[in-house]
Amino acid sequence: MKYLVRIAYLGEKFYGFQYQPGRRTVQGELNRVCEQIFGGVCRVTGCSRTDRGVSARDFCISIEPPEGAPRIPARKLPLAALPFLPRDLVFVSARIVPESFHPRYDVKTKEYRYVIRCSPTPDPFLAGQVWEYPVTLPKNALPRMREAAAHFLGKHDFAAFMAQGSDVKDTTRTVFCMKVLKKGKLITVSITGDGFLYNMVRIIAGTLLDVGSGKLEPDDIPSIIASKERKRAGVTAPPEGLCLWKVSY
Amino acid sequence: MKYLVRIAYLGEKFYGFQYQPGRRTVQGELNRVCEQIFGGVCRVTGCSRTDRGVSARDFCISIEPPEGAPRIPARKLPLAALPFLPRDLVFVSARIVPESFHPRYDVKTKEYRYVIRCSPTPDPFLAGQVWEYPVTLPKNALPRMREAAAHFLGKHDFAAFMAQGSDVKDTTRTVFCMKVLKKGKLITVSITGDGFLYNMVRIIAGTLLDVGSGKLEPDDIPSIIASKERKRAGVTAPPEGLCLWKVSY
Repeated sequence: MKYLVRIAYLGEKFYGFQYQPGRRTVQGELNRVCEQIFGGVCRVTGCSRTDRGVSARDFCISIEPPEGAPRIPARKLPLAALPFLPRDLVFVSARIVPESFHPRYDVKTKEYRYVIRCSPTPDPFLAGQVWEYPVTLPKNALPRMREAAAHFLGKHDFAAFMAQGSDVKDTTRTVFCMKVLKKGKLITVSITGDGFLYNMVRIIAGTLLDVGSGKLEPDDIPSIIASKERKRAGVTAPPEGLCLWKVSY
Repeated sequence: MKYLVRIAYLGEKFYGFQYQPGRRTVQGELNRVCEQIFGGVCRVTGCSRTDRGVSARDFCISIEPPEGAPRIPARKLPLAALPFLPRDLVFVSARIVPESFHPRYDVKTKEYRYVIRCSPTPDPFLAGQVWEYPVTLPKNALPRMREAAAHFLGKHDFAAFMAQGSDVKDTTRTVFCMKVLKKGKLITVSITGDGFLYNMVRIIAGTLLDVGSGKLEPDDIPSIIASKERKRAGVTAPPEGLCLWKVSY
């Protein structure tokens, strides 16, 4: 029996998704909650490894309860989990999937959103959910960022947009959709792709902001991608602005 | 010298606005912050007393620094305060007002918003900012709530909508505007009036939800108001859904 569960969590009080002994991680909490629901150690597998401080509104996990565990109907799982969950983590929905299903390898596309809040003073209601950016951007920042964003579309070797020290062999990824939206003080960068390198979305967000503020030109992006050099791209935007928005299978 | 400062705070970690020794209150934090900015004890006066757990997006305070304190230009005050403020409290804007100005007595209208989130599972991103209401409402809940809401408009004796034990003499208030809006899972009740009795907005929100769920009829409202009996009205909705949204002078 294998469940696919869509969960949401506010990242700020987690040391990322992946289990680490002695630290509060999403997987650590899920292991505990699943053991309480099913009365035994479950196998919990995530669709991705989000970093410390990164949030998710649609993170997918598989749960495999132990032999002989109570057979809880999938639609009842979110409510069955509720009493055991902390307030920054929730089961949104659940369904049964075939044993062959893998929440990471079977992902078709993922959408991440990165939110920058442009204001001299922070918003207490969005603490831990946005990058508070207190510097005023020039008036043409948005069209420049949109022009730059378009250069990321398609299949590219994104080595320049991967944190140094990563040991991934194939650094080619395909970006299907890029949007830069503004609503009030919030600039949202939405990126949909078939997969992402370590810190890739945060480096793209930081680079787009460098274009918005005038440090880089929109047409610098193709040569930065072609260089494959991390140092040519912009800063890594902080984790709190990042959210895994949608996972599709 | 008297400043009028518009502040915002997330209420969940405060024991309300008003200073209480040994407890974390908004006024307590403001006293400390103002003393740090101006180098001496300031007189801090609020526009209202919000309860424990209630938030504000536009709460107004006056600050009177002591004699001889540094003369900080009003427009610089929000940034001057920033290093001393906790993350759930922010100075949004400031201006100089005449000595005669009083942030409570000079209020013309206040708008409160009460947000109910209708879903079986809570939203971690809105923890402490909405009333999580896990019961499914009937399909006609919204039009019924709107019909009921209209009965609150105008000048009434709202004694039935005041927490028992209050010792206010004049319980007549005027409601200028009532809106019941739905966006996704969120129902927002917006109430603008010249003033509000203790717990009045929370009792109105609870009563409207009783109409939405079918426990009361929209046309019950006039007779509940006329009765002046607290027990005829609905439950007091919990504090976390309430936010002081706008104060006008």
